[in-house]
Amino acid sequence: MTELLSRRDLDFLLFDWLDVVSLCDRPRFADHSRATFTDVLDLSAQLAAEQFAPHYRQSDAAEPVLEDGRVRMHPGVRAAIDAFGKAGLIGAGMDHEVGGFQLPAVVTSACFAWFQAANAGTAAYPFLTVANANLLRAHGTAEQVETFVSPMVEGRWLGTMCLSEPQAGSSLADITTRADPEPDGAYRLTGTKMWISGGEHDLTENIVHLVLARIAGAPGGVRGISLFIVPKVLPAGEHNDVVLAGLNHKMGYRGTVNTVLNFGEGAHRPGGRAGAVGYLVGEPHRGLDYMFHMMNEARIGVGAGATALGYRAHLASVDYARSRPQGRPRGSRSGPQVPIIEHADVRRMLLAQKSYVEGALALVLYCARLVDEVNTGPDERRRADAQLLLDLLTPIAKSWPSQWCLTACDLAIQIHGGYGYTRDYDVEQLYRDNRLNPIHEGTHGIQGLDLLGRKVPGAGGRSLRLLLEAIGCTATAARSRGGEPAEHAEHLQAAADLLAVTVADLYAVGDIDVTLANSTLFLEAAGHVVVAWMWLEQSLAAPGQEAFHAGKRTAARYFFRYELPKAQQQLGFLRTCDTTTLDMQPGWF
Amino acid sequence: MTELLSRRDLDFLLFDWLDVVSLCDRPRFADHSRATFTDVLDLSAQLAAEQFAPHYRQSDAAEPVLEDGRVRMHPGVRAAIDAFGKAGLIGAGMDHEVGGFQLPAVVTSACFAWFQAANAGTAAYPFLTVANANLLRAHGTAEQVETFVSPMVEGRWLGTMCLSEPQAGSSLADITTRADPEPDGAYRLTGTKMWISGGEHDLTENIVHLVLARIAGAPGGVRGISLFIVPKVLPAGEHNDVVLAGLNHKMGYRGTVNTVLNFGEGAHRPGGRAGAVGYLVGEPHRGLDYMFHMMNEARIGVGAGATALGYRAHLASVDYARSRPQGRPRGSRSGPQVPIIEHADVRRMLLAQKSYVEGALALVLYCARLVDEVNTGPDERRRADAQLLLDLLTPIAKSWPSQWCLTACDLAIQIHGGYGYTRDYDVEQLYRDNRLNPIHEGTHGIQGLDLLGRKVPGAGGRSLRLLLEAIGCTATAARSRGGEPAEHAEHLQAAADLLAVTVADLYAVGDIDVTLANSTLFLEAAGHVVVAWMWLEQSLAAPGQEAFHAGKRTAARYFFRYELPKAQQQLGFLRTCDTTTLDMQPGWF
Repeated sequence: MTELLSRRDLDFLLFDWLDVVSLCDRPRFADHSRATFTDVLDLSAQLAAEQFAPHYRQSDAAEPVLEDGRVRMHPGVRAAIDAFGKAGLIGAGMDHEVGGFQLPAVVTSACFAWFQAANAGTAAYPFLTVANANLLRAHGTAEQVETFVSPMVEGRWLGTMCLSEPQAGSSLADITTRADPEPDGAYRLTGTKMWISGGEHDLTENIVHLVLARIAGAPGGVRGISLFIVPKVLPAGEHNDVVLAGLNHKMGYRGTVNTVLNFGEGAHRPGGRAGAVGYLVGEPHRGLDYMFHMMNEARIGVGAGATALGYRAHLASVDYARSRPQGRPRGSRSGPQVPIIEHADVRRMLLAQKSYVEGALALVLYCARLVDEVNTGPDERRRADAQLLLDLLTPIAKSWPSQWCLTACDLAIQIHGGYGYTRDYDVEQLYRDNRLNPIHEGTHGIQGLDLLGRKVPGAGGRSLRLLLEAIGCTATAARSRGGEPAEHAEHLQAAADLLAVTVADLYAVGDIDVTLANSTLFLEAAGHVVVAWMWLEQSLAAPGQEAFHAGKRTAARYFFRYELPKAQQQLGFLRTCDTTTLDMQPGWF
Repeated sequence: MTELLSRRDLDFLLFDWLDVVSLCDRPRFADHSRATFTDVLDLSAQLAAEQFAPHYRQSDAAEPVLEDGRVRMHPGVRAAIDAFGKAGLIGAGMDHEVGGFQLPAVVTSACFAWFQAANAGTAAYPFLTVANANLLRAHGTAEQVETFVSPMVEGRWLGTMCLSEPQAGSSLADITTRADPEPDGAYRLTGTKMWISGGEHDLTENIVHLVLARIAGAPGGVRGISLFIVPKVLPAGEHNDVVLAGLNHKMGYRGTVNTVLNFGEGAHRPGGRAGAVGYLVGEPHRGLDYMFHMMNEARIGVGAGATALGYRAHLASVDYARSRPQGRPRGSRSGPQVPIIEHADVRRMLLAQKSYVEGALALVLYCARLVDEVNTGPDERRRADAQLLLDLLTPIAKSWPSQWCLTACDLAIQIHGGYGYTRDYDVEQLYRDNRLNPIHEGTHGIQGLDLLGRKVPGAGGRSLRLLLEAIGCTATAARSRGGEPAEHAEHLQAAADLLAVTVADLYAVGDIDVTLANSTLFLEAAGHVVVAWMWLEQSLAAPGQEAFHAGKRTAARYFFRYELPKAQQQLGFLRTCDTTTLDMQPGWF
């Protein structure tokens, strides 16, 4: 069987490039060492291969169905989640005191990528639970953590995030789910939530929903939204008034049950009264702040998931291309057919994939490393700077892998030819699964507005300056090497300079609608500049003669020659502050 | 319900731009008029909507299954095919003497696009039958036409094309199916064919397979392949030895049953002897020539199908974007949400789709118009030139719509957000269906080699000169208009000049492996130049003030500003004759 991810590459990125062992000098990670990191990577690779991968196709073909009001799904999902929970991996990054391993985010991201590669649909349950538990750890009371987080860390309960509503997808300001206070300090919630992954199932005895809602009388818009814990089963054992209204049937990611949930519709009446019982998290009206506090990690998680799917598709493509005979070298009309990896166009596609998936993996791990710097950096200034750079890179770490690792899956089908279009090969499903990632946790359009409209001008422009400085440092290091790294450095520096000039031009136009009209293209171009930087970093860390290093350097060359110029063309276009999309009238379509 | 295609656009392209009514001056089309063209377009639109569209989703969800050796499929498929046959549309382009309508290819292409948009899976059965019948009309004997073509034109039988084998997909030189001559002049065939669409079903009483095979003792490679008619049921009523070995289960296009067929495995023994009975078409060893004779039309048909799927996805996106409220104008925090078409990024995606699908439709109809010129042009020279230009444009007409109208489907999902990722909306299926088109009838890689390695250098370079002249004529006309068309003309001319220079540079390198290493990128860039030409043509034909014309001109502007520069960047790269893909070693992946 083809490998799910490359352990060689993860070791290279974690140990040779990011030097994660140095984190063990920090108090939080003092109990760790390269050996403990290696152990948990080994454990993850093994569990992913043994418990998550085997039902990958089956849990797609037999997607969850609603029978007699219950969700029935492939039994492999439950076994995998149980194994994940029993291994303690829900708490991989959490404090020892809640039963966690207290591992660095960069290591847990690498571990979780194995599960995402093995079975994205099944992996979604524990990952949503981790996000849920982290949010409660940060903003819940000690009692809430004890009551709700502990069972999740022990793997006994799962968690969800309930944000969207049918009339409010990207526009959270418009949610209408209502929360009425009760004399005992709890709330009663009424409303409908849409697109809730893991919203109903019997994988665990309880489900902890985190729900955005408006307290009666709260101000309109995003400032009047609060966050509530709404357990499926209340602490006293009574069924809460949370009812499954229907399932969404998706193109891919089918192992993850996706639900519409009705809160407080009256199917159950806890304590004899109407409304689903909810417990306020933190202060009223600050629910979105708490959500966005977790958003960096959630969005990097989406990028990591997209990367994992593309990475697995790439490895499957390399295997196929090495083993499938078809055609002959130019000018040869007889003799045996050659493996298709001998054809230049197949190698071009494989190189494109490699540059996307290894570039994306470097980016998401770099961002996870920044999370560690934010949490455990040696001084206030470095922590603050890490936060600014992380904020800037997050929309890119979410969207770039979602776009280009989907392209890697598309190329995987092309490399497999007709076979890749059949459900007999994994690449068909990897492509369908990965199509989700440009949509959830904020579409490309939302990420583009976040990057160009918020992150770039925010903090007085310091975030962008930090990025340009970091790129400049890498370029300086590469110039001192001479040769090809020095050529790459000139190219990267020119692209980074152009990025800065483009921002200046876009903001000089004086009309914010024009500035932001092509923010999605800006997102895409900035992503290519950032990933070129990741590739120069990787090529500097791979100076050796061995095949692995030669492959890294050739993929870097591919990216600099085939890919980075696309971004320069886009940036040149952006500088024209084009208004075609604004001038087009809806009635002209 | 959203329209499947835009009749307004088809009328514009056929009558305002391509002036197809002028074809009625030619003897072959003397019985026709704008009225007869309109009638058959009306008929096609109506049949497509009433017979093909209604079971689009059902024939995907309930794909063909093998039960007790028989293929069971959704009953809507049979009803639709019966209606298509009864309407006489199989013979739409064929001679009156075989029962056809003798319509121009450009009109039949427009008609068939309705069926492809309505239900690509069901439409595949009649279209394969048309291709099969056209091949037999061109190369079969009068008796073969009488015996096999007439029942197909009457809609009583269906036809297939059996080229690929499990070990020979793109590499037809390697097919091993064997044909042994019989004393009576027939042959006995033995072998396995793969990827055969419509290979087995009970939609009709008989199936006419056209099969590539080697006559015993034939030379190896592509020069030793002959073409045979192998009917499922022999003229005497006996079952031929053609056996369904299995079904392929695809990502999309599921309504088209896709089969593995065994010929001559001995399950049946017609006349008591081994082998499937086949009848030679034309001369021995010329089978591939005959196939490739039909390839232009087949490949343009694939391009048209890809266009139709993308076009329908675009129209669905426009409808959705006009009706889905979400978010508010910048700076507005209250008031009702606005339809998402008000957001610049959504309009950007809609404009991109429009530029792709309307550009592609113009290209495939332009190519179909060239088919008419080849067949009925006023003099030998014009017919020969039309053939050369058609040969050059065919790989582009196949691949460009396959790539960019798939992107239009991808954007359709993005515009629909989470809903677009569910099977409740057609765009999900349109995306899966359209993913086939970059693969069948020759992958992008094959088309790129055909364009740069064969068509461009062929005929002493005259094909490319004809293209450049045609582009030059359009540019001259646009310059005389002044204003924006003149600007576009300068831009297009520069891109066309760059295309010519790139060809010269690529062939000056003196190493054909280097020349062709990036032929797929050349295909893509040449496609963008050609479609820019199509857009300049369309904008010249749309000078009016009405919304439709304004939309055409804005889409043209979009293409010239956002898209054509991509091709110029690619051509600039191609001129470097880069060898990264050749230098990359298989062991470095």
